Amino acid sequence: MQAVKTNEIVGVKDGGVTTPLGFKAGGIHCGLRKTRLDLGYVLSDVPAVTAGVYTTNQFQAPPLKVTQESIAVEKKIQAVLVNSAVANACTGTQGLADAYEMQQVFAEELGVANHHVAVTSTGLIGVHLPMEKIKSGVKNILAEKHEGAVNFEEAILTTDTTVKHHAVQFEIDGKLISIGGAAKGSGMIHPNMATMLGFITTDANIAHDNLQAALRKVTDETFNMITVDGDTSTNDMVLTLANGKADNEPLNENHPDWDVFLQGLKTVCASLAKKIARDGEGATKLIEVHVKGATSGTAARAVGKAVISSNLVKTAIYGTDPNWGRIVCAIGYSGEKVEPEKVSVSLGEIPVVINGLPCPFSEEEASNYLKQENVHIYVELNQGEHEATAWGCDLSYDYVKINASYRT
Amino acid sequence: MQAVKTNEIVGVKDGGVTTPLGFKAGGIHCGLRKTRLDLGYVLSDVPAVTAGVYTTNQFQAPPLKVTQESIAVEKKIQAVLVNSAVANACTGTQGLADAYEMQQVFAEELGVANHHVAVTSTGLIGVHLPMEKIKSGVKNILAEKHEGAVNFEEAILTTDTTVKHHAVQFEIDGKLISIGGAAKGSGMIHPNMATMLGFITTDANIAHDNLQAALRKVTDETFNMITVDGDTSTNDMVLTLANGKADNEPLNENHPDWDVFLQGLKTVCASLAKKIARDGEGATKLIEVHVKGATSGTAARAVGKAVISSNLVKTAIYGTDPNWGRIVCAIGYSGEKVEPEKVSVSLGEIPVVINGLPCPFSEEEASNYLKQENVHIYVELNQGEHEATAWGCDLSYDYVKINASYRT
Repeated sequence: MQAVKTNEIVGVKDGGVTTPLGFKAGGIHCGLRKTRLDLGYVLSDVPAVTAGVYTTNQFQAPPLKVTQESIAVEKKIQAVLVNSAVANACTGTQGLADAYEMQQVFAEELGVANHHVAVTSTGLIGVHLPMEKIKSGVKNILAEKHEGAVNFEEAILTTDTTVKHHAVQFEIDGKLISIGGAAKGSGMIHPNMATMLGFITTDANIAHDNLQAALRKVTDETFNMITVDGDTSTNDMVLTLANGKADNEPLNENHPDWDVFLQGLKTVCASLAKKIARDGEGATKLIEVHVKGATSGTAARAVGKAVISSNLVKTAIYGTDPNWGRIVCAIGYSGEKVEPEKVSVSLGEIPVVINGLPCPFSEEEASNYLKQENVHIYVELNQGEHEATAWGCDLSYDYVKINASYRT
Repeated sequence: MQAVKTNEIVGVKDGGVTTPLGFKAGGIHCGLRKTRLDLGYVLSDVPAVTAGVYTTNQFQAPPLKVTQESIAVEKKIQAVLVNSAVANACTGTQGLADAYEMQQVFAEELGVANHHVAVTSTGLIGVHLPMEKIKSGVKNILAEKHEGAVNFEEAILTTDTTVKHHAVQFEIDGKLISIGGAAKGSGMIHPNMATMLGFITTDANIAHDNLQAALRKVTDETFNMITVDGDTSTNDMVLTLANGKADNEPLNENHPDWDVFLQGLKTVCASLAKKIARDGEGATKLIEVHVKGATSGTAARAVGKAVISSNLVKTAIYGTDPNWGRIVCAIGYSGEKVEPEKVSVSLGEIPVVINGLPCPFSEEEASNYLKQENVHIYVELNQGEHEATAWGCDLSYDYVKINASYRT
């Protein structure tokens, strides 16, 4: 056990889903893609308490149905199996049967109950899973040579340019707790890759309802605050598995360190969310919009998402144009009540709007600031005490290229 | 008077805001732009009953406040004065004073009450109106050589590539009624040009409340169904002036030909809306999304707008990619309840999804269809009797270019 100070949340270098005790992971090439890994798993030594959040898209893919139904049985799963390349969405009754079979073959291989296996797919919409390849992959995937968190991280990617992982550790009840995660997501690129998947593991001891509440709260503040292109896919899912191996007292709202756990979970999810935003299709920059002074958290998040979602803001930042009017305009149509004469906006440390009116600034200095790879927009609403951060990326020629001309 | 058959709505070649009796219009170059016309007016012989719809953006520009306040006095105005190049938005108390002065000088020039003049600005946000240029323009604008609907149409443009006008005629109570309109709008391009302005004139005899109700209903089905980039500007406005010169019986819901008037107004507004969509920044195609079988008009419009607003749908059509998964995905996140297994989608006459599942089609044939300048997407929800159409454009490299690199 590493020595960490109580309540201090420490990042773990190269950490991921196998940082917490009692988890392993791996990935294999089973032939769904030309050469890249395309089938991955995460496995807990014991059934782990599991929380999940899922896409609100009504064309929800069959694997999401199977996974939600399975978690509902005991609120626990032991393993997750993920394939890339084929989303198994809009595939009807055959698609549902395939998802069940994918679950079953991995459960048999592991010797666990079917409902202890979650299945997830990401890739082409409207195409059936090549089940022979999946089944052959499952037979070999547990071999030691395919083990490793990075293999899992690679196997779940679609148009992503890099793997995405993060892990933290902190001490609660004198026990070291770890939280680790992996994610994929870059854009719902053709032919309709699912936007985002997140898998979080922890060895914390926590009951299902508390884990679900924590995941919901943290997801609203992290994964739900990123946007690449505003399209909510059919396959989005974040699963969190807690196997209790850290042996702490059960975590809940009455535990004195409940907030430490929440903060640890948020650190991992925020890190993964930012990595997804930065890796947005065609992105050259990560944009962070920080909203303060809102009357509620909901209002702060709505204003942040309006700004980060604006194509005009995104293209202006791509072009390093300090075009504050577009930011103000987006604040004005966010749907939340604002008082225009109280709104101030800064680009990094450069104020551009004070109390609803433009203020003088050096265009050159502001444009130079926007040349950075990580751009911060600060919005002060001066109406209340609530705040939020939204993450996104610029809109470049390459976004259009990736999404318009992939076939040519 | 032209001979038109009762109730038949006939388009007027090259018609516009001066097609109805008792209206004139004009435009002048007053120096706000380098060489293009930049100040325009519409004038009725007599005060005209006026209805208006305005942006919901909370950073509403001062001229909109002045115009709404003025119309409220008698529900009538006689003239509209519009400048391009400077939006007079985010300009504080000075901006409000400038809008009042702009109104006053034109009212003096015309010899009418201040509150009978509406003022509108479109262009740069955060810049004050050059009032000397505006005042000098107003002094000369009524000269005969500056008269003409096309001069008005040109003076209100920003990044638009063409003027936009439409007019229709029909007979009610044995009287010829004309409705004509002009509009501008291309995108909220830098530095923050207002998205859209519409000016409709008619010689119909109609009370204010009925005209306002008609405009609201028709706007929801036309101007509110277009999207170029999803950004709602600070200066959007549609004004409709009815001067009663046609001398028909007052139009209201109990008039047997009320629906004819509504249809005439809708024809003009839909024509202008489509022209704005087709002239979207960087657009190469007009896209029309036709939604049928919805449980309500609101649901039909929400689904249509979700599809037409999707960057992924827009880029796919730019790339002539029959990527139906993106259309289905957008339907699924529209916020309206749909039954996925009932949804069918066609590209023109080519079915691509039937009852929620993909159907075989020729990729080549579908891709060829998408090469047309006017692309129709048909969505059948099979849930009810309501329908709607949404208009938009594709998302091209030029959209990014226009919005990212205008300075370079």
